[in-house]
Amino acid sequence: MIDPATALHEILGPKGWLSGSDAEPYQRDWLNRYGVAPLGVATPADTSEVASVVKLCREAGLAVVPQGGNTGLCGAAVAQQSNAVIVSLSRMTAIGNPDLDSGSIVVEAGVVLAALHEALEPDGLMFPMHLGAEGSARIGGLIGTNAGGSQAFRYGMMQDLVLGLEVVTPDGRVWDGLRAVQKDNAGYQLRKLFCGAEGTLGIVTRAILRLYPKPRQQASALLVLPGFAAAVSFGAFLRGEAGEFLTGLEFFSDFGLQLALKHLPDLAYQLEARGDVYLLVELASGSLRVPLDEILASALEWGMEQGLVVDGALAATGAHRAQFWRLREEQPEGQRLEGEQLKHDISVPPAAIARFVEAGAKICGGILPGVRVNPFGHLGDGNIHYNLSPPEGRADFDGKAELFAEALSSLATQMGGSFAAEHGLGRAKVAMADRNRGLVERELMARLKAVFDPLGTMNPDVLVRVSQ
Amino acid sequence: MIDPATALHEILGPKGWLSGSDAEPYQRDWLNRYGVAPLGVATPADTSEVASVVKLCREAGLAVVPQGGNTGLCGAAVAQQSNAVIVSLSRMTAIGNPDLDSGSIVVEAGVVLAALHEALEPDGLMFPMHLGAEGSARIGGLIGTNAGGSQAFRYGMMQDLVLGLEVVTPDGRVWDGLRAVQKDNAGYQLRKLFCGAEGTLGIVTRAILRLYPKPRQQASALLVLPGFAAAVSFGAFLRGEAGEFLTGLEFFSDFGLQLALKHLPDLAYQLEARGDVYLLVELASGSLRVPLDEILASALEWGMEQGLVVDGALAATGAHRAQFWRLREEQPEGQRLEGEQLKHDISVPPAAIARFVEAGAKICGGILPGVRVNPFGHLGDGNIHYNLSPPEGRADFDGKAELFAEALSSLATQMGGSFAAEHGLGRAKVAMADRNRGLVERELMARLKAVFDPLGTMNPDVLVRVSQ
Repeated sequence: MIDPATALHEILGPKGWLSGSDAEPYQRDWLNRYGVAPLGVATPADTSEVASVVKLCREAGLAVVPQGGNTGLCGAAVAQQSNAVIVSLSRMTAIGNPDLDSGSIVVEAGVVLAALHEALEPDGLMFPMHLGAEGSARIGGLIGTNAGGSQAFRYGMMQDLVLGLEVVTPDGRVWDGLRAVQKDNAGYQLRKLFCGAEGTLGIVTRAILRLYPKPRQQASALLVLPGFAAAVSFGAFLRGEAGEFLTGLEFFSDFGLQLALKHLPDLAYQLEARGDVYLLVELASGSLRVPLDEILASALEWGMEQGLVVDGALAATGAHRAQFWRLREEQPEGQRLEGEQLKHDISVPPAAIARFVEAGAKICGGILPGVRVNPFGHLGDGNIHYNLSPPEGRADFDGKAELFAEALSSLATQMGGSFAAEHGLGRAKVAMADRNRGLVERELMARLKAVFDPLGTMNPDVLVRVSQ
Repeated sequence: MIDPATALHEILGPKGWLSGSDAEPYQRDWLNRYGVAPLGVATPADTSEVASVVKLCREAGLAVVPQGGNTGLCGAAVAQQSNAVIVSLSRMTAIGNPDLDSGSIVVEAGVVLAALHEALEPDGLMFPMHLGAEGSARIGGLIGTNAGGSQAFRYGMMQDLVLGLEVVTPDGRVWDGLRAVQKDNAGYQLRKLFCGAEGTLGIVTRAILRLYPKPRQQASALLVLPGFAAAVSFGAFLRGEAGEFLTGLEFFSDFGLQLALKHLPDLAYQLEARGDVYLLVELASGSLRVPLDEILASALEWGMEQGLVVDGALAATGAHRAQFWRLREEQPEGQRLEGEQLKHDISVPPAAIARFVEAGAKICGGILPGVRVNPFGHLGDGNIHYNLSPPEGRADFDGKAELFAEALSSLATQMGGSFAAEHGLGRAKVAMADRNRGLVERELMARLKAVFDPLGTMNPDVLVRVSQ
């Protein structure tokens, strides 16, 4: 028998099989915390090549690690062992013609999210998934991590936007689930199960995605609020008053604003007042008959009367709007440039956001006095990126990273939320899941994994550990 | 060892264990096609009683059949063998206090849908699930069948409305998945998997459901269209023009209207013109600043200019609106009163509705000349209830029921749709699924079933047959 690398090279050709230094760019995860050199990187040209790779790896006892844009934050898309093959779908980037009257489109899993947005531009349709990594994140990775982003409270997460899937299963067969309908109750909802499975149950090769009409008008505002409790109340009011148009409800803190302004000199904050919390509100409508500006202005006015809003400005131009968004989008970058940081991807019921932020700060201050909390995220679905910077004048967290993670994850769990809201478990949070979730749940997951992948070769040790 | 019936009686008390004639009302399915007398009917008072029943049945080798409101159309909620226990959650009907700021609520699985609607009335929130059986369908059954209904294209199916679940697994343990957040990527999406599992993987005992703000205004119109192609085009236009407000987009045919008017003398059709197709359009908004009537009237005008709409009327009053809805809602009843019928629960990509209706009619006419087709359903998600009445003057289908079902299911499959759109498989369509879906898919489902329920005692022979 020839060695697996030679065999893979033969199947895939020189474009489809990268090894040695060519494989290096695929080796480490985005946060540079995980990844050893794999046997090589397969970049198959189509589904049948993916299936061949998976089959061959299975026979050769090699682990298979599916990789999308490699922008995940939990290390799920790189190898932990040298006898592994990374399967990158970066060459499978075909975008079908959208079905305009149905609102759907077929794409290969290697399509970059921003490329899909661009391809839909002329057709009056949109794919409502937006997140920081959209310039490099690929559809397959977004499905694997069940991505959320800023519009999830309005349009759903990937699991809500996927109609049909094609998946190469761990035994190298192809599941053709490429149906283009929302209503398909012919058995278990496999299409939902593969969303968020982090490549541990198979490799998604194609998807049929749900599209929405592109709005014809937008209205955006940046608001200054006295605190998180006010933000929660104002958010609930907005959901009632402008629920159908509300497409963005993003928050960040004054500390986050300080960091962003400090480290990104081209950023501008043009309102007069400052507050503890800032809200970026966005409304959008397909109808030009809706007085969006008026609705937003009147909500703002109500907020001010109620003492929930201190100050605010409506974006008068597109450039103005982009400025508002950059204040929110540069939150991670501002904090990164401040130095060492700890990221926590929390969700709680939206009504509990203020309670979480407050209790979390108390707990964190107890662990390391002076630690600086920078919560930002998505108010509509209660998703808080509860990130930490060391105390002023300190460069690190005094070796207490695990203590913070444990305390915050258990607080989220107590509040009926999640310690892995939209980034998933990957390699980083498997142990945390084992601690925070009940035995029945973790066992069901381990059994699920075992039944789809009895040999345990598909992205091993990601999401769940199957005890041998 | 005491016999299981006595043991169950002891665990559950006289209110919780029905046998003999007391069990009879639970025995047959709603269409009176399935169901034999079970050993008895358990009506547990809480989750721990459900768990005890499941455990006892498992030890005694009895099948467990979960039953909600028993309004399903595929026979999934009644027993097929006498050594079975039906578990009805009809006594577990607690409704928690809604979390107003988060938009969620905890309910027991036995809650009747209409009771939930009513309980939410004072709070300005709604649970956006509406279907014909809402007066008797229970939350657990709606989850088990992944119900869709008339607002699914806007708010999603049950799988999109469930945040958290509590489930008694087939081994009698309790999975506590009662998280109240949309974003929870801590492992496989079990909460989605149990939606549509038809009670074959466990018994849902409690759920946290997503709520939406109740609209403050509505606009409804009944439109007359020349044909299905026009309906598809007009529907696509409406999704763009009034996408955010569109909450209803229901269609029925002129034949369906004839049947309803013939058999339900109190029904009124008050428009002048008749056409091949009728559309019931409903817009709703949380904002009083949206000119809903104007948006609807102008869409109607556009449709008339384009020749897509022949006639139409906006509902001026609530009574008027109710009249429109009854025309749509009485479609099943009108056809039932006409005599023998065959029901087919189809979905196709919305753009393909006209093609399906036309091709389906041709195929059906080929099988039994003169057979009368009565398609009605949900235009927004392509869900067609493609029901048949025998040819004029005939009382039956000449023994050709299977031929119709096979031909229509394979046509839906070819068009990228489903032969089990929102009613599920139950006992009625397992063989059809085996024929219409690929081997990989059916095997994955059989393996899923086997791993959750290795003894095969949880609703056996429903959804999938596990080969022994």
